[in-house]
Amino acid sequence: MSVDTLDLSFEALDQGVMKAGLQAYADRINAGDRDGVIALFAPGATIEDPVGTALKSGPQIAEWFAQTVASRTRITPVAPIRGSHGNAAALMLDVTFDGAAGQRMLIRSLDVCTFDAEGLITSLRGYWGPEDVEQVAAEDPSR
Amino acid sequence: MSVDTLDLSFEALDQGVMKAGLQAYADRINAGDRDGVIALFAPGATIEDPVGTALKSGPQIAEWFAQTVASRTRITPVAPIRGSHGNAAALMLDVTFDGAAGQRMLIRSLDVCTFDAEGLITSLRGYWGPEDVEQVAAEDPSR
Repeated sequence: MSVDTLDLSFEALDQGVMKAGLQAYADRINAGDRDGVIALFAPGATIEDPVGTALKSGPQIAEWFAQTVASRTRITPVAPIRGSHGNAAALMLDVTFDGAAGQRMLIRSLDVCTFDAEGLITSLRGYWGPEDVEQVAAEDPSR
Repeated sequence: MSVDTLDLSFEALDQGVMKAGLQAYADRINAGDRDGVIALFAPGATIEDPVGTALKSGPQIAEWFAQTVASRTRITPVAPIRGSHGNAAALMLDVTFDGAAGQRMLIRSLDVCTFDAEGLITSLRGYWGPEDVEQVAAEDPSR
């Protein structure tokens, strides 16, 4: 884990561009801005959320975010966004949304994204398991 | 982000096994237990830390953790470990260690690991960028 022995001949994307992309992803979902969220993704981008399920792309991504907005999804980042020495960055987040029966649900998730040279998201992988989902307590109206 | 539309025909590894593996990874590094950390990895496992640099495997992994322990590396998880619907889990962590000039350094990192059926780590990818590293303030002796 030492930085002293790193091979620094990498070609990292601009860290600020990638982190701004992930922050915009959270902000636009929280604003219910479906088209704004979709605009953050490159043509041909893929979403695997949660990891271990089928990839979504193209119209499936548009449908995914239409549903995301319709279920009043709210994202709370839980720590500073991480960059990398390549084309990836990662956001750890708590996600709340309206479940099928009207109850408010919480997913403790973690999104790893890759980006192209223009700063558009080329892939998103959401890490959360069956045990990272719970119903939000009724006494917590903030979520 | 709705759980209602998930294809549940996945074959997820046991979430508790993967999360226990990541917790043991943190605990054993914090205990300076080099051999115990190495024992968490499957034969043939690879480490890409930080993401965007060359893969390490075999004896490079042993050397990596020898150096990790020698630099008094300490891991502080910053949120609950995430699972997945596949063979992966993720840990967001703050990492401190002794830098080359004796100063204490902090890396804000995020480790995504995959696991085999025995619960051993088959790959570790550490997400942190050049801007996620800082010197620990002298007034913070806890790190």
